[in-house]
Amino acid sequence: MQIGLVGLGKMGGGMASRLAKAGLDVVGFDISAASRARAVESGARTVEDLTALPAALSGPRVVWVMLPPGELTHGAIEDLAGVLDDGDLVVDGGNSDFRDAPGRAALLAARGIRFADIGVSGGQWGWKNGYGLMVGADETSFAELEPALSALSADDGYSRVGGVGAGHLVKAIHNGIQYGLLQAYAEGFALLEAHPEVDSLAAMSAWQQGSSIRSWLLEQTIEALRENPTLADVDSRVPDSGMGRWTAEEAIRLAIPTPALSAGLQARFASRSDGAPNRLLVAARGRIGGQKE
Amino acid sequence: MQIGLVGLGKMGGGMASRLAKAGLDVVGFDISAASRARAVESGARTVEDLTALPAALSGPRVVWVMLPPGELTHGAIEDLAGVLDDGDLVVDGGNSDFRDAPGRAALLAARGIRFADIGVSGGQWGWKNGYGLMVGADETSFAELEPALSALSADDGYSRVGGVGAGHLVKAIHNGIQYGLLQAYAEGFALLEAHPEVDSLAAMSAWQQGSSIRSWLLEQTIEALRENPTLADVDSRVPDSGMGRWTAEEAIRLAIPTPALSAGLQARFASRSDGAPNRLLVAARGRIGGQKE
Repeated sequence: MQIGLVGLGKMGGGMASRLAKAGLDVVGFDISAASRARAVESGARTVEDLTALPAALSGPRVVWVMLPPGELTHGAIEDLAGVLDDGDLVVDGGNSDFRDAPGRAALLAARGIRFADIGVSGGQWGWKNGYGLMVGADETSFAELEPALSALSADDGYSRVGGVGAGHLVKAIHNGIQYGLLQAYAEGFALLEAHPEVDSLAAMSAWQQGSSIRSWLLEQTIEALRENPTLADVDSRVPDSGMGRWTAEEAIRLAIPTPALSAGLQARFASRSDGAPNRLLVAARGRIGGQKE
Repeated sequence: MQIGLVGLGKMGGGMASRLAKAGLDVVGFDISAASRARAVESGARTVEDLTALPAALSGPRVVWVMLPPGELTHGAIEDLAGVLDDGDLVVDGGNSDFRDAPGRAALLAARGIRFADIGVSGGQWGWKNGYGLMVGADETSFAELEPALSALSADDGYSRVGGVGAGHLVKAIHNGIQYGLLQAYAEGFALLEAHPEVDSLAAMSAWQQGSSIRSWLLEQTIEALRENPTLADVDSRVPDSGMGRWTAEEAIRLAIPTPALSAGLQARFASRSDGAPNRLLVAARGRIGGQKE
């Protein structure tokens, strides 16, 4: 199988390496010459301009876009709409907002180009362990993509989860769940730490070995603590990538109760608060009850 | 190693089998003759009365109590305090309230008997896969218990998490976390189901294969859905065993924020509500805003 790959950064570069290693003919593009050079070392061919991609692939072409979500991804898809041909297939494998999928599918469909959205999990370990792939595509496109999906994933860790749009939706929900899971482990850690007679690391290690709450996220949490037992110099303001917000917005739109997922997201917002709401609360409490401020 | 085992039910019976298979001399007791017979088939010796246990073991004796928490466990420990000798060791492996440990330790210590509390995870699969063991004990008792701990767990899945009392505390927090984790997965499932274009089972299977939220709990959740895709005849009122409440009470006592864990627990309470608070809310809303009730 031949595949075009737009974006050869941390994620795209790792994918180029897995695809080439599996014997696929990979033609990569990235604006960074260093990223292109790394992809060549991994066994991929590269082009220096996106517009040169179609000529380097034979039709019907498959071009996988692996760029940061938002303008960069949208720009690449618009560019591809201008240079690809009827029957070609564009894949968005980035962390795109699932609500963008219908518009992108329509933009490409106007040129006869097919679209598939794939949620990719596994992050920086995926190049080594294989990625988890949540595919939103029609059945024909999915079948066409299978050699690439199989090469990218471990133990056939890819599934067609629905038609176009479903891949990024399922990935967003996945990330929303992850916020809840990580928050639950962090709260458990806080409870352990409140008991000086308990060895937190031993307790979490016991959980990871044969207990029902063992998981890949707990394993990573334990490793982070093992590497830095005092968590020195770790910023306590928890960032969020945006995907948890999309999930929360979708839950609100559909009026689906998601207290645990929301707790995970809200706890991240709270971690970044400047404290002003709490100061107002303390001040108001002082007025109301006469407590000392 | 020789070990007494009080309680040969689902958990204790599975443990007797693992311990005997590993070559330990197991002397079991249960009020049920059928449970005793099953333990004998598994390779254990049994006694027909708790008071006969000391004579069947040579000192310093180790007696592991594996009974439902509360009165049954407490009664057995009181009985053992009356028949065991100075230097013997009583283990409570049940799902006991961690706040009961100091009292039980004191009760036994008055007779010179040592105490250890062990949180056991792995449930009905533990007899096969090995249990995860969270041990609260002094170092000498822990060392003495190691042959049994090693036999019960898989891949040395046991840890001394602290002194007496720590085992059941760490197990309670473990269960509290589990409430949050299961709730997060259930909420994600609700979001998937709200999208008829998405195949929920395919999506969750994709999560379990190579994605960052893969876990033993997700695996069990998927299997439950695979066995019963429509969840027909499954009661929607979620029970709770009590351990999640103890964790929540401890969090409140220590003023530790646990929004995700609490969300999991509160969602279970809400699932069993008779709806009266909601009916009052609807009625009050009607009075206030004039909305149609």
